Amino acid sequence: MKKILLINGPNLNLLGQREPGIYGSDTLESLEHNLKQIAEQRNVALTCMQSNHEGVIIDQIHLANRKYEGIIFNPGAFTHYSIAIRDAIAAIDVPVIEVHISNVHKRESFRHHSVMAAVTKGQIVGLGMKGYELALFALTDE
Amino acid sequence: MKKILLINGPNLNLLGQREPGIYGSDTLESLEHNLKQIAEQRNVALTCMQSNHEGVIIDQIHLANRKYEGIIFNPGAFTHYSIAIRDAIAAIDVPVIEVHISNVHKRESFRHHSVMAAVTKGQIVGLGMKGYELALFALTDE
Amino acid sequence: MKKILLINGPNLNLLGQREPGIYGSDTLESLEHNLKQIAEQRNVALTCMQSNHEGVIIDQIHLANRKYEGIIFNPGAFTHYSIAIRDAIAAIDVPVIEVHISNVHKRESFRHHSVMAAVTKGQIVGLGMKGYELALFALTDE
Amino acid sequence: MKKILLINGPNLNLLGQREPGIYGSDTLESLEHNLKQIAEQRNVALTCMQSNHEGVIIDQIHLANRKYEGIIFNPGAFTHYSIAIRDAIAAIDVPVIEVHISNVHKRESFRHHSVMAAVTKGQIVGLGMKGYELALFALTDE
Amino acid sequence: MKKILLINGPNLNLLGQREPGIYGSDTLESLEHNLKQIAEQRNVALTCMQSNHEGVIIDQIHLANRKYEGIIFNPGAFTHYSIAIRDAIAAIDVPVIEVHISNVHKRESFRHHSVMAAVTKGQIVGLGMKGYELALFALTDE
Amino acid sequence: MKKILLINGPNLNLLGQREPGIYGSDTLESLEHNLKQIAEQRNVALTCMQSNHEGVIIDQIHLANRKYEGIIFNPGAFTHYSIAIRDAIAAIDVPVIEVHISNVHKRESFRHHSVMAAVTKGQIVGLGMKGYELALFALTDE
Amino acid sequence: MKKILLINGPNLNLLGQREPGIYGSDTLESLEHNLKQIAEQRNVALTCMQSNHEGVIIDQIHLANRKYEGIIFNPGAFTHYSIAIRDAIAAIDVPVIEVHISNVHKRESFRHHSVMAAVTKGQIVGLGMKGYELALFALTDE
Amino acid sequence: MKKILLINGPNLNLLGQREPGIYGSDTLESLEHNLKQIAEQRNVALTCMQSNHEGVIIDQIHLANRKYEGIIFNPGAFTHYSIAIRDAIAAIDVPVIEVHISNVHKRESFRHHSVMAAVTKGQIVGLGMKGYELALFALTDE
Amino acid sequence: MKKILLINGPNLNLLGQREPGIYGSDTLESLEHNLKQIAEQRNVALTCMQSNHEGVIIDQIHLANRKYEGIIFNPGAFTHYSIAIRDAIAAIDVPVIEVHISNVHKRESFRHHSVMAAVTKGQIVGLGMKGYELALFALTDE
Amino acid sequence: MKKILLINGPNLNLLGQREPGIYGSDTLESLEHNLKQIAEQRNVALTCMQSNHEGVIIDQIHLANRKYEGIIFNPGAFTHYSIAIRDAIAAIDVPVIEVHISNVHKRESFRHHSVMAAVTKGQIVGLGMKGYELALFALTDE
Amino acid sequence: MKKILLINGPNLNLLGQREPGIYGSDTLESLEHNLKQIAEQRNVALTCMQSNHEGVIIDQIHLANRKYEGIIFNPGAFTHYSIAIRDAIAAIDVPVIEVHISNVHKRESFRHHSVMAAVTKGQIVGLGMKGYELALFALTDE
Amino acid sequence: MKKILLINGPNLNLLGQREPGIYGSDTLESLEHNLKQIAEQRNVALTCMQSNHEGVIIDQIHLANRKYEGIIFNPGAFTHYSIAIRDAIAAIDVPVIEVHISNVHKRESFRHHSVMAAVTKGQIVGLGMKGYELALFALTDE
Repeated sequence: MKKILLINGPNLNLLGQREPGIYGSDTLESLEHNLKQIAEQRNVALTCMQSNHEGVIIDQIHLANRKYEGIIFNPGAFTHYSIAIRDAIAAIDVPVIEVHISNVHKRESFRHHSVMAAVTKGQIVGLGMKGYELALFALTDE
Repeated sequence: MKKILLINGPNLNLLGQREPGIYGSDTLESLEHNLKQIAEQRNVALTCMQSNHEGVIIDQIHLANRKYEGIIFNPGAFTHYSIAIRDAIAAIDVPVIEVHISNVHKRESFRHHSVMAAVTKGQIVGLGMKGYELALFALTDE
Repeated sequence: MKKILLINGPNLNLLGQREPGIYGSDTLESLEHNLKQIAEQRNVALTCMQSNHEGVIIDQIHLANRKYEGIIFNPGAFTHYSIAIRDAIAAIDVPVIEVHISNVHKRESFRHHSVMAAVTKGQIVGLGMKGYELALFALTDE
Repeated sequence: MKKILLINGPNLNLLGQREPGIYGSDTLESLEHNLKQIAEQRNVALTCMQSNHEGVIIDQIHLANRKYEGIIFNPGAFTHYSIAIRDAIAAIDVPVIEVHISNVHKRESFRHHSVMAAVTKGQIVGLGMKGYELALFALTDE
Repeated sequence: MKKILLINGPNLNLLGQREPGIYGSDTLESLEHNLKQIAEQRNVALTCMQSNHEGVIIDQIHLANRKYEGIIFNPGAFTHYSIAIRDAIAAIDVPVIEVHISNVHKRESFRHHSVMAAVTKGQIVGLGMKGYELALFALTDE
Repeated sequence: MKKILLINGPNLNLLGQREPGIYGSDTLESLEHNLKQIAEQRNVALTCMQSNHEGVIIDQIHLANRKYEGIIFNPGAFTHYSIAIRDAIAAIDVPVIEVHISNVHKRESFRHHSVMAAVTKGQIVGLGMKGYELALFALTDE
Repeated sequence: MKKILLINGPNLNLLGQREPGIYGSDTLESLEHNLKQIAEQRNVALTCMQSNHEGVIIDQIHLANRKYEGIIFNPGAFTHYSIAIRDAIAAIDVPVIEVHISNVHKRESFRHHSVMAAVTKGQIVGLGMKGYELALFALTDE
Repeated sequence: MKKILLINGPNLNLLGQREPGIYGSDTLESLEHNLKQIAEQRNVALTCMQSNHEGVIIDQIHLANRKYEGIIFNPGAFTHYSIAIRDAIAAIDVPVIEVHISNVHKRESFRHHSVMAAVTKGQIVGLGMKGYELALFALTDE
Repeated sequence: MKKILLINGPNLNLLGQREPGIYGSDTLESLEHNLKQIAEQRNVALTCMQSNHEGVIIDQIHLANRKYEGIIFNPGAFTHYSIAIRDAIAAIDVPVIEVHISNVHKRESFRHHSVMAAVTKGQIVGLGMKGYELALFALTDE
Repeated sequence: MKKILLINGPNLNLLGQREPGIYGSDTLESLEHNLKQIAEQRNVALTCMQSNHEGVIIDQIHLANRKYEGIIFNPGAFTHYSIAIRDAIAAIDVPVIEVHISNVHKRESFRHHSVMAAVTKGQIVGLGMKGYELALFALTDE
Repeated sequence: MKKILLINGPNLNLLGQREPGIYGSDTLESLEHNLKQIAEQRNVALTCMQSNHEGVIIDQIHLANRKYEGIIFNPGAFTHYSIAIRDAIAAIDVPVIEVHISNVHKRESFRHHSVMAAVTKGQIVGLGMKGYELALFALTDE
Repeated sequence: MKKILLINGPNLNLLGQREPGIYGSDTLESLEHNLKQIAEQRNVALTCMQSNHEGVIIDQIHLANRKYEGIIFNPGAFTHYSIAIRDAIAAIDVPVIEVHISNVHKRESFRHHSVMAAVTKGQIVGLGMKGYELALFALTDE
């Protein structure tokens, strides 16, 4: 049974409350719940975490190294400046897929650049909650 | 039955021959064949085209307007400068998902910017041939 | 009798359909029809063409060299990157007036720069369909 | 009877004397005289002013607010830095058309950018004295 | 009794008329009236002026040098380019507080930079008419 | 009784010790003490916190959402790069006023830009400890 | 017998007519004729084509892959933006030498940068018609 | 007898008072007095003016056209942004020498660029009051 | 006996595991062990810490202020963006030497800039584990 | 008999030793020897020099002015910054052809720009030792 | 008797030959001769040197330290990049005046910036050979 | 016995005289003397040279190739622009350590970038004369 880790970064605990015009009305709880069910159907164990603390996310990425076959990661605002998280991703062997709920290219220009894209396996951007599901398929099908 | 259009841009006719280290060894033919089969299983009619001519792609996007429920589009090098294609996408009502086989953020810096990302629904980047399949799911599930 | 050529660039075949908030609800057909009538009243023969293909526009500009006294040209998105069309304009002796229907300076910043403005006679920007008519006056009065 | 205001900015009092290779040999006086005659024929009352003082131009734009149906404005060098005039234009309801006698895109690069273009109705550039006449048509025909 | 000078820069004479969505519906007159009353309560004599002329503002700043204990200054659009006013502020000993009614950081990017911030005592930005009052407190409390 | 939250960001626990030439000699303790007294006089309950941890500040901003009528926030160095805190501010409904003790525009150029200014209500800059007091007035008067 | 392909890009069909001060007075026809003769003397079969269409040039580069030992390519204005042609060159095994008739470094700054130089074998710039001949030597001597 | 005009721009009326560390302790009055004496010895009539108003300076430059053999001009802060004054200088036939009292290259980076240097005859920078005298020699010796 | 603090920043806990081509095969443990021995020989007490949390590092730097004679600091990825840590270093009196194991100038361009270099005593870059030892010598010899 | 001067700039004395992957294994001696033989066959006298000293190269270019019909010049690293050599080339009447052994556009971005290209006759780039030979043909055929 | 050193930088030995449209027809010899005579009249001993070698100029500047009361320096092309000469000027106590014969601001944009202006006493630009004479006055009058 | 070469670049012959606030009061002589003694104690033969001539330094680096086990190099101002020296370092096999006496990151921004850092083994910056000693340890210990 494959093991996949889902990491949601800063402010994603507010999903459903925060700017629903951009992020939709599903809560983080329901996202995690739904995704776990989909994972189960594919015989995948999905572990979920969220943190607003850069250091906590780095610690978790380190711990994931020998424990998971893949990481689905929505870095939130850390996308644009946390080189420390970038280095954590580069330091482990687990493939990471970067997911953004909204199409960041439609938003402020500082959201167009990801400091971690070059060390992830790939990115899924702008496809809403569906993006997490597609990342799960990408990590578990191949 | 939903109808989806797949457009592959310049040099993608060389898939399987061109820089296989970056693009893999599958040919465009086999990609289109496989994707059509997957589409059929989901009761979707997939039409495929490829062109090295910007004008031909613009014409096709215009024609697609009333005929398809979605477009899967790998703009190849046009990604980085064809504002004319961008305007064509913005001019129609059909949702477009931008697909890149390789992780463009690992390559030359001029490949990091897409002039059309802001008018597409979303992007799937770096997930190989799988990316097309995920785009199909995203366009046909919702 | 003076002869004037009207060239409309990419996506302008969609006039009336595409983003009517920006481009108004007149179709290309009615624009060309009206402009031909105005031309006739001034004893000017107006020939009209539209293309989404950069190469076709370059070919036409070359052919226009000995045949027309002036060109009214809305380069659409080619305004911002087609140095090849710029060179075609610089290579002929016919004066070219660049027309933009919308006020491009109110839109995305990449639309503020024209690679061809320096080789045209002048520009008329933001005055709607009226802009074509004014260009006709400018080319036929002097 | 429509009322239109013509404002010429700094150094345009020297028309006919200053760099005739760029600006032609007509004086400001003859420009204003000719334009008034053309206006009269269209049943339009044209008022003319010129100033080298930014503050005077701002004051006049404010005063124009309830008195004119349109403003033809050649901001001269203020085009490139007077955000104060830009704000004055944005603050009134009268449509303003920006006119430049020479094709500024053929000249020094600092002349390529207009800080006020985004708040005017449109621009007519490079068509000589004719540009003022076209602006008059654009403001009085619609 | 302390003496404070209030200077409002270009276009602020239109307060209440101009873009009320941004600047509110109070007029300059009522702003000055209210502020004078508040000043009086604090035993401060407030003198008010407004000008659309950069030179007039410079002259007034020079004259203020020995006459006022502080200046409340909303430079309007001059904020972004009048280095001459900056130099006037740097040349006198009276502390100047820069006030902006709207949050300039929410607006066009050219409004994010103040050429005079480095020579003022401080800035109060985005707090509406209240900003002037706070500036008064800051200059008269210490 | 209104409730206001005061958040001081990284290194502000050293107030009074750190670069007194820039920040003055008052300690954080005395600042909080004085501000609480002023708040009390205005019948406002002021809660104070300080943290050097970005994640802790984000968590607190989230918690503040239903509990406070306003936040006075000196983000310290986070001003210039913490897009995660910016997103937290944008995600809640409580108005936030950004306060900087020193005039950041007189210091290194990287201190001139605030990544969060566009999502706050306003900024008070360079007015020393007084700036906090003014922010309190601004949040409680209206 | 070696086979070499000569590709001339947009507007080079106007050689001899267009800006003779820059490009000389030889026509494309005479250039091709002369070069074919020189090729023959070296026992090389030279095939010549010219197109103003980016897509046609890409198609031809693809077709050249197994048919020619080298390509002499003057990309004209495509030099500066056609990443699609760049990718076509990178996708084939035939060495390409980029030729520019004029010294592009003496001209507008946008002509100083070639998007394809990094994937060609080398460049010959500013040596007039002679440049084509030298490219032929370089491709057939080694 | 040669006639020379001395124009001092904004804030130079404060010479001797303003930042004496940078500008020295001589007043404008004494500068003008001394320079007039030196001029007299060389049989040159020197006229002096100073203004903080850009428009006044432009008007004076226009009037100088047929009346003076040379202009000594310290544009003060206008150096860095008044393209309108630049155009006035370019519009007249009188040679202008730009003088800066302080070495502007030792000061803030925005003071390193002069928008008018390209249309003046030359510049004398950083040589204090002596710079005016040298400009006088340069204009009257040749 | 001198007291020195060694701080290793994010991801340095993975030394020996992470990208050994860049960072060598020694673990953090052995680095700290060896360095402590060298310190002992010089009669220096070395305290070691590592954290992936920016806030923890800031707290430690504050605590170090009265306790250590010097800090050896490898900020890892924080080098490039943590202005908060920069401010912490500037706020204390203890000299800090920045150490980078790899030659950052051979790597991605974003690694060439250190936001904290200007407030440290100096930097030792690219000399491997030896760099820490040299920093120890530099802090304890003088 | 024509006389041509060959100048090789800094570090080219190491040809054959230095980075043979980039520069090949021929020594400067053999390059000069071969090129002299080819020159002789064309009845051209070739003089060769190499220097690592910018000043020596400038002196030689000056001396060449009346003595040679052409200069073949590989400026090495001086290509990118020696404006003094650029001025020397511009100051003489002898045509200079710039030669680069490697394709500089495949290397570090600072090698893409030549400060002297605009004053040379042309450039031959990336064609190895053959480039010198082609330059000889270009200078002696015309 | 005051002692002044005149240093002319690279290519200035060609004065009178090189681009006389820019530099005039006087030779370096006559310049030095004339300037020595003028110096003599003022009881100043003028020593002259010229070099195309940066190192020689640096050596001379060092030697000048205790021997001269001032240096007149035309750095030629070194103006724009020789930070080593800048440091030499900063290292000595002798005042240096930078002289440029032509108005560099009318020429290529790379000539607008001087890396040494900030460490010289001042600059005299665009006043031809006269500029040297004025520099002499400036250094010997005060 | 190991052999190490010490190269000091331009203006370092003035050590002890030049800006002692930045560089300390030790002369080059005493630096070389002390360092030779330290070298001797480690059984290392240290050869010292200094030059203000870029070409001389390049020649010496070439000569060092087979003669020394390491080079300690303070490039002085050449650090920031001498790509020729960079290429010399890249061309030899001897490891080079770049030393800067002062912390260049505290000084003018043009001193923050080293064109040679990427081809040296490492850098020691800001540690005064001690930096040379540490470089010696780094080159002789391993």
